[in-house]
Amino acid sequence: MDETEALRRLAEAPVGYLVTVRSNGDPHIVPFVFVVEDRRILSMVDAKPKETTDLQRIRNIRANSQVSVLVDHYEPDWRRLWWVRVDGTAVIVDSSLEHIATLLRAKYPQYPDVDLVGPAIIIDITRVTGWASS
Amino acid sequence: MDETEALRRLAEAPVGYLVTVRSNGDPHIVPFVFVVEDRRILSMVDAKPKETTDLQRIRNIRANSQVSVLVDHYEPDWRRLWWVRVDGTAVIVDSSLEHIATLLRAKYPQYPDVDLVGPAIIIDITRVTGWASS
Repeated sequence: MDETEALRRLAEAPVGYLVTVRSNGDPHIVPFVFVVEDRRILSMVDAKPKETTDLQRIRNIRANSQVSVLVDHYEPDWRRLWWVRVDGTAVIVDSSLEHIATLLRAKYPQYPDVDLVGPAIIIDITRVTGWASS
Repeated sequence: MDETEALRRLAEAPVGYLVTVRSNGDPHIVPFVFVVEDRRILSMVDAKPKETTDLQRIRNIRANSQVSVLVDHYEPDWRRLWWVRVDGTAVIVDSSLEHIATLLRAKYPQYPDVDLVGPAIIIDITRVTGWASS
């Protein structure tokens, strides 16, 4: 799968898996929703129910900016499996929130019912890996 | 979500996301198929097409045994989202392969068409986190 196709599939995926590293070096993973603009992944903390507002993903990125994001397609027919993984450098921002919220609302019709509260996560994509079983 | 329910959903999920840490501390994620037996996740390298047989996940676990595994349910109705994450300690083994292969073949009818070649990954579950939006 070439990079253009991989980035297209990434952008269209409704959900991805954000991987960060804890301060003790252990890995952490959480599903998240996002948009892709240019070669960046944009996401924002929203008001979906959470155990805490002091989110582990935010603390991890503040200490270690290196992240991975996976999107995948699974179905019983294993000839049709594919996934796209990107590695990148993430920052936590409290600016540009309205721009990011507008993009998220355009992709996710669910957002009128769920508040976008911030902060945002901006991931600069540094490496793209795409795999398809056939 | 209580731990029994979380482990039940983990065991029934057809695909999970295995997170390991590279030797330089960067995170790595890949989709994988697996079974749950007692409080362990069992998986085995199979012959689905791969870029290389020197798999990054295997090298990572040999250097750092701490892993996370996520399974999730996503749908447009965000009131029905859920995910289960387990943290654990992984080992790479070249024994018990026939036992693990039998369990995998019982869960995945695809395996007659895809060879199970090994080695296997055995993850002892140390922490279970379940989340549901409602």
